[in-house]
Amino acid sequence: MEPGTARIAVDLLGGDDAPAVVVDGALRAVRADPDLHLLLVGPTEVAGGLIDALDPAQRARIAVRPVRTAVGMADHPTAARAHSTVRAAVHAVREGLADALVSAGSTGATVTAAALGFGRWSDVRRPALVATLPAVAGPVVLLDVGGSLEPRPATLARHAVLGAAYAAVAHGVVEPRVGLLSVGTEAGKGDRLRRAADPVLAAAPLPCGARYVGLVEGYDVSLGVRADVVVTDGFTGNVLLKAIEGAYAMAGGPPASGGAPRAAALLGVAGTVVVCHGAARPDEVASGIALAAHLWRRGATELISSLLDGIPQDSAHGNEVVQ
Amino acid sequence: MEPGTARIAVDLLGGDDAPAVVVDGALRAVRADPDLHLLLVGPTEVAGGLIDALDPAQRARIAVRPVRTAVGMADHPTAARAHSTVRAAVHAVREGLADALVSAGSTGATVTAAALGFGRWSDVRRPALVATLPAVAGPVVLLDVGGSLEPRPATLARHAVLGAAYAAVAHGVVEPRVGLLSVGTEAGKGDRLRRAADPVLAAAPLPCGARYVGLVEGYDVSLGVRADVVVTDGFTGNVLLKAIEGAYAMAGGPPASGGAPRAAALLGVAGTVVVCHGAARPDEVASGIALAAHLWRRGATELISSLLDGIPQDSAHGNEVVQ
Repeated sequence: MEPGTARIAVDLLGGDDAPAVVVDGALRAVRADPDLHLLLVGPTEVAGGLIDALDPAQRARIAVRPVRTAVGMADHPTAARAHSTVRAAVHAVREGLADALVSAGSTGATVTAAALGFGRWSDVRRPALVATLPAVAGPVVLLDVGGSLEPRPATLARHAVLGAAYAAVAHGVVEPRVGLLSVGTEAGKGDRLRRAADPVLAAAPLPCGARYVGLVEGYDVSLGVRADVVVTDGFTGNVLLKAIEGAYAMAGGPPASGGAPRAAALLGVAGTVVVCHGAARPDEVASGIALAAHLWRRGATELISSLLDGIPQDSAHGNEVVQ
Repeated sequence: MEPGTARIAVDLLGGDDAPAVVVDGALRAVRADPDLHLLLVGPTEVAGGLIDALDPAQRARIAVRPVRTAVGMADHPTAARAHSTVRAAVHAVREGLADALVSAGSTGATVTAAALGFGRWSDVRRPALVATLPAVAGPVVLLDVGGSLEPRPATLARHAVLGAAYAAVAHGVVEPRVGLLSVGTEAGKGDRLRRAADPVLAAAPLPCGARYVGLVEGYDVSLGVRADVVVTDGFTGNVLLKAIEGAYAMAGGPPASGGAPRAAALLGVAGTVVVCHGAARPDEVASGIALAAHLWRRGATELISSLLDGIPQDSAHGNEVVQ
């Protein structure tokens, strides 16, 4: 556990089995980390009984922020109410009541709320969801896993920069190797997007001593032999991450180093945001909260943003249409 | 083992470690299946010593077909010579010297040689590579895994028909459930291709009592809970298959039901063709040969082709540009 207080706002209504699973996960996180403070954002009544069961020292580190609109929207579907709680959680961070935010709600709603509330980094048009998989030689940073389903080559190049900075800052990877996911490793392999992106990535300056190693394959995401950072479109990254999770379930359980993550960091907005899978279990929500605390303690968002400022962006990037 | 003689032409020069690995795999296949006959296509000298080590009954089931151009091309790179051996193997099947063909060479070269030599089915513009993964409730048929990297919605719909017929004919799946791979299961999830293809697949008549179950996720490829057939573009299918293979390696080995296959059937040409991964090990080459024999013994190619004849193709299909 790294030292330092971290105050995390948690969206109580995000997730398929919210709020019960979220509250359960939040309490696990508080028990595991003595310097963690939580701000539970959403209907107060759901959290009360569970919080009362904590010991006084743990209870003191949990606050609840009622969301006024949630009362008036009691008859609305949970998803609609959840959009208002994630917005309220963003607002709480902006007000300085929390340092970072975790939601297991709709990814789209969280990305939108974070982009509007915190603002986007000026040189990142499409925020990226970044997942870290444990692999043979260390972590593999996979991006994007669902933020940008149809990126242009310039977005993939920008995500290479983001991924390299994230690997160095969040995971301490020295001189990260960055690869572009394709169907083979020889130059020219892949669809039009990959063939267009490969030379753009090869020419892109990367931070933290990172270097582009060219095309990598599906194996490299799970095994991590060729690259520390694997860049792909959000469609492929999303199905890949879930297929690896399914393979571990088929194989009788994840490797000792850990399974496929169900929490991803959102990079490209001026705030620390972690998105959990809607079907995340309590321990996975707790992992997401721990990830948010880790990123806050490392000052990851500001560090990565300042690293990006030193990297020129491709001129073609300005022409990209935001989908 | 199913009854019936099967005569398989094997491309000796296909694969990263050809011919040694291919010969090794071929001999394993012959030992395992007493009704299997092989025609090894390529430079005769490489196979001689190994074949001599077999017992006489096994040796009698192996023939060698020298490829004339391979001699004159001794100074050419293996890849260039391999293109001539896969063409010679296609030719041997056309001459009636073999029933089916296996190559671990370049997928593109094999698809091209097969399409030119056997001809394409008239209503399938883009042949599909079909892989079968063992999953919880039975096999999952995944297509495409590398034949068509950028399909149109009509091609995905045609591949749904191919996949349903393949699941029924090759694996005996009753009333196969067909899903379209995306980032979520709710209608509307996915990129433009998936959003366009979903209603096309929903409207497409399917053979063998198959039914379309809508969007499925990455989990469903490895676990097979929601669908027996998963349709996707060749880029995603290829990286997914390799990521699952890598995950099994990370988890300490594949599940008892079997790992990710390194052999795929080519559907859409008028011949029985199995493509092995270029890095296939001898036992994986032997599996590919066994798959070709299995498909031949079931009359799979002709059965699937005749099932397709009864299914009207989407009118938009005729406009597709072959990439």
